[in-house]
Amino acid sequence: MSEKGLIVVISAPSGTGKGTVIKKVRKRHDGFEFSVSVTTRARREGEEEAVDYFYVSEDSFKQMIDNDELIEWVRYCGNYYGTPRKYVEDCCDSGRDVFLDIEVEGALNIKKKYPDSVHIFMLPPSLWELKRRISKRGTETEQDIERRIEKALSELLYLKEYDYVFFNTDVDESVENVLTILRSEKMKVGRNLNILNKIEGLKGE
Amino acid sequence: MSEKGLIVVISAPSGTGKGTVIKKVRKRHDGFEFSVSVTTRARREGEEEAVDYFYVSEDSFKQMIDNDELIEWVRYCGNYYGTPRKYVEDCCDSGRDVFLDIEVEGALNIKKKYPDSVHIFMLPPSLWELKRRISKRGTETEQDIERRIEKALSELLYLKEYDYVFFNTDVDESVENVLTILRSEKMKVGRNLNILNKIEGLKGE
Repeated sequence: MSEKGLIVVISAPSGTGKGTVIKKVRKRHDGFEFSVSVTTRARREGEEEAVDYFYVSEDSFKQMIDNDELIEWVRYCGNYYGTPRKYVEDCCDSGRDVFLDIEVEGALNIKKKYPDSVHIFMLPPSLWELKRRISKRGTETEQDIERRIEKALSELLYLKEYDYVFFNTDVDESVENVLTILRSEKMKVGRNLNILNKIEGLKGE
Repeated sequence: MSEKGLIVVISAPSGTGKGTVIKKVRKRHDGFEFSVSVTTRARREGEEEAVDYFYVSEDSFKQMIDNDELIEWVRYCGNYYGTPRKYVEDCCDSGRDVFLDIEVEGALNIKKKYPDSVHIFMLPPSLWELKRRISKRGTETEQDIERRIEKALSELLYLKEYDYVFFNTDVDESVENVLTILRSEKMKVGRNLNILNKIEGLKGE
């Protein structure tokens, strides 16, 4: 019923399987847009411009900050990452939900600027499973793995800043969880105050 | 994931078709209990003790108020109506959701005492449809009908005190809406703080 699109942030510690869930949610939910972030980090093999990121120079990024073109940005491991304002706001205004795949810090900034945004935290089924998934990639050293797990645990402490939480034990169940949250959020009274205006009108009839 | 049961209040102007929706929700959702109110009004034909209401004398009702046995009560058209505390709290504590079918004023009192309770407002498809449904009963005079519509409209103004709102255009869709809201509410971070404690524990491992 809600006429404005939702800003939806889904965060999850690396290794939780968020990518797969997001892909399936986008297939199931029409009109669910995906905000592509801007970054100064180098493009990795297999990544595509405007699909994975918009790749820009540090100067361009700083210019975007100065022009207030980013709704949030963070510096992480020496690189900048940010969310372009125009795309997100255009989606919302035209009633399309827009999905932001960002770090916990960035998520906090979004909540401050858009208190109506919906924040979902997806958890790995267990710490054991998280370790297994991170190790399984096989591309990282023992030390890298330890560092990633440490980081995942520290991110979990941001959980209380989110609105919803669930364990990703089954991909289809997780997709259903995200869709359930979206449907429910659209019935929130705060998102449907236009109804109240109509009722006020009826009183006089 | 949430371990405590939810207190769910569903309100709707008379004539919205709430009764049918509630019956179907109870059939679909296991462990959904229904709180039976206490009243001092006389039992009507077809009503059953402990199913429709617990029928008590005014003295008994006042005694219940004094003993703090009611979580809310109102006086309405010369009769008292109240919600017994024990049943509601027993349900929640044992993880069963409990459903309260109460007037807008009583609902407000519940929200104050149980800020975590979930409040749903069901609307008739249109004012025209509401008039049609109220008139269709055929048991009321023209004046009664006008009075009921006036009352329905004034109840609608309480809408902003509720959490969720939807139009009852199709019974099955409305049942699905209620169930969606319940599933989504159970994923609220505030209802799953036990997870946070577990994470704090993991940090030290």
